[in-house]
Amino acid sequence: MNPCDIIRKKRFGGELNEQEIRAFVQGVTDGTFADYQASALLMAICINGMTDRETLALTLAMEKSGDTLDLSDIPGVKADKHSTGGVGDTTSLILVPLVACCGVKMAKMSGRGLGFTGGTLDKLESIPGMSIEKDIDAFKQQVRDVGCAIIGQTAELAPADKVLYALRDVTATVDCLPLVVSSILSKKLAAGCDVVVLDVKTGSGAIMDTYEKSVQLAKTMVRIGSLSGRRFSALITDMDQPLGNYIGNALEVEEAIEVLAGRVGGDLKTVSLTLGAHILRNAGAVRTVEEGIALLEEKIISGEGLKKLSEMIAAQGGDPRVAYDTSLLPKAKYKIDVTADRDGYVTGMTTRDIGNAARLLGAGRERKTDVLDLSVGLVMKVRMGDKVKKGDVLCTLHAGDGSDRIGAHNLMRKSIAIGDDRPEPQPLIRAVVE
Amino acid sequence: MNPCDIIRKKRFGGELNEQEIRAFVQGVTDGTFADYQASALLMAICINGMTDRETLALTLAMEKSGDTLDLSDIPGVKADKHSTGGVGDTTSLILVPLVACCGVKMAKMSGRGLGFTGGTLDKLESIPGMSIEKDIDAFKQQVRDVGCAIIGQTAELAPADKVLYALRDVTATVDCLPLVVSSILSKKLAAGCDVVVLDVKTGSGAIMDTYEKSVQLAKTMVRIGSLSGRRFSALITDMDQPLGNYIGNALEVEEAIEVLAGRVGGDLKTVSLTLGAHILRNAGAVRTVEEGIALLEEKIISGEGLKKLSEMIAAQGGDPRVAYDTSLLPKAKYKIDVTADRDGYVTGMTTRDIGNAARLLGAGRERKTDVLDLSVGLVMKVRMGDKVKKGDVLCTLHAGDGSDRIGAHNLMRKSIAIGDDRPEPQPLIRAVVE
Repeated sequence: MNPCDIIRKKRFGGELNEQEIRAFVQGVTDGTFADYQASALLMAICINGMTDRETLALTLAMEKSGDTLDLSDIPGVKADKHSTGGVGDTTSLILVPLVACCGVKMAKMSGRGLGFTGGTLDKLESIPGMSIEKDIDAFKQQVRDVGCAIIGQTAELAPADKVLYALRDVTATVDCLPLVVSSILSKKLAAGCDVVVLDVKTGSGAIMDTYEKSVQLAKTMVRIGSLSGRRFSALITDMDQPLGNYIGNALEVEEAIEVLAGRVGGDLKTVSLTLGAHILRNAGAVRTVEEGIALLEEKIISGEGLKKLSEMIAAQGGDPRVAYDTSLLPKAKYKIDVTADRDGYVTGMTTRDIGNAARLLGAGRERKTDVLDLSVGLVMKVRMGDKVKKGDVLCTLHAGDGSDRIGAHNLMRKSIAIGDDRPEPQPLIRAVVE
Repeated sequence: MNPCDIIRKKRFGGELNEQEIRAFVQGVTDGTFADYQASALLMAICINGMTDRETLALTLAMEKSGDTLDLSDIPGVKADKHSTGGVGDTTSLILVPLVACCGVKMAKMSGRGLGFTGGTLDKLESIPGMSIEKDIDAFKQQVRDVGCAIIGQTAELAPADKVLYALRDVTATVDCLPLVVSSILSKKLAAGCDVVVLDVKTGSGAIMDTYEKSVQLAKTMVRIGSLSGRRFSALITDMDQPLGNYIGNALEVEEAIEVLAGRVGGDLKTVSLTLGAHILRNAGAVRTVEEGIALLEEKIISGEGLKKLSEMIAAQGGDPRVAYDTSLLPKAKYKIDVTADRDGYVTGMTTRDIGNAARLLGAGRERKTDVLDLSVGLVMKVRMGDKVKKGDVLCTLHAGDGSDRIGAHNLMRKSIAIGDDRPEPQPLIRAVVE
């Protein structure tokens, strides 16, 4: 099949058939579809769109472009969770052990990625001794024995996505619905779980810049995901402020432990438990989401959740005492307060800038090769709508010698707006798509 | 300027400014705009289009991407002609010497290109001894002395076009109006002439497949060309059958000589003289096109045109006797007639297939590296609407040992349709755009 024929069809708004989409995905994987041809087709897809049939075919072809995990020899329902990414977004570390306590296996393979702070893998590596490398058999054995595991991608899952993502990144074709959907879903499908819950962020720190686009992304992912034969749900959650108050790597582990220990509540806990409850409901472990939330709450109160986290840490070579003593986590050298310069209410946060401030401190990567300082980050002291007085601490920078402290401080001053009127509170969970 | 910002703007339908277009063209020329980025932008241009302002900026940036010829030290008006390409399209060899006889200088630099038959350069090389290589100074001297020259591109004219064309060819982005316009015009502008006449073909052997698209192409080229400050006109001429009856390289030289000698008339002569007359009128040598045609006709009758051709041949090292004795041209080894299989009228020709038949015989290139047999080709014996009897010769193949004689024969049988009713005659010159 000639690449030009496929490109031409999409250029003029035609619907590509399965065979053409498979030829494209196979071609980018084996190099017979040149990168300049792939980028021409990606642009045509961005402008002319894709039907559901095309998006499903693209997702399945990308899923099958590399290894696919077979988890069928692990008894019970296997579940996975995906977030489109935000700031202070530590839900995995909370819900993975909690859901595992309820008998649903959490088998999570994560990428590292770029972003404001490190990915889940970087956060886990801030736990002394913790390893995120396991071969497939050992990974599956841990899921069987402990009930949960979070490791780095060892199998080559959806290699076509790697090629396409690298191209999209340099050709202004990242934010295109069918391409985002197929990129996320192909990896999730290849990872072999039966139940997947998606956390689609919306607001100033989210990949989709409007609520409408977030809803469209969530609906399309659930629709296409369900067509693939797995059970998918999605929550659309607020990212107009950081989800948790701790932003960084070790700092986020610390907050997750505080939530699991029952000492901290708030938005991070609410979203984590709601995502977990959807997994339990979709896995058939409970009948309703409300029942699921109550069950997960019990696992916090009983201490089972925290115990499960310490078991997972131990199974991956880490120091299990961390779950009960967060002073064992790496700590930043300097703490610098950012204070309010007037009285008023917190009326807005540019979450993206808060994420960028964490990155300036060394908590996140701009380039794949950047080395993180796992101890640094931010601790937010205020949330949207809070009343503050001049001089009150808005947040504390946790910095190291490699941190751009001045840059982060300036950025944080700009990113928290204080005004005269208390803003209308926004719902945390904006919508549920199932 | 970041390539992604430029690509993104066009992806969402924005108008690129001069600076952005220059950055793109400079980037593809020096390699800082990667080919996969260029192809993404080309696709966005194909789908979202370009305004006149953008097309002009693209044309001028491409013109200035390499050498530009300065012909201002040659006295008088310098003119050039461009055809979008067809079959039996030998107008240059006729009008160049004729126009030169009328005091307007013809300074023509041609590319070789791919196609049904060779380009003008290949045709000229079928003349024994003829060279199409000259340095710029010698080229200008010949234009000064003889009044005309046709040579191969020695200067590096519009190198950005070379990069972009190669990409367009493999990404299904060839037939896009602003890209076609800027590709043609940038090279014409860089070649430095004051007056340019364009021959835009329409019909079954033309680059633009419908009359409407041909008109649009002609209008856009004349509009953009005029904005650049040169005098442009365009004819839209019929390509629903080959223009001349001789198709090949030496064969087309032979027919051009027959026209210049006054022994052959017909469509080829009509189009050549009309194009030439537009040049004379635009150059101010005559007041009307009709006057121009009459003047050029005189140059045929007086023998000056043929004499000018022989002078041009001599100036480029060729055997000037060819103009008076076409038996000196290379001749094909085999002649094979293709005959009518029924009585009737010639109701249709698929010109593209006739061109492909010539290519199968060895008259044209499929790949840049293909070696031509300059002696081979076709001689058409019928034109649209002619009455034929079963067994009448429709055309004669002039073949060599390297020719695909069976393939060409089969293709020719299919490409001339014979029916019961005489078709409505079509005008040869469909429109004039000035």
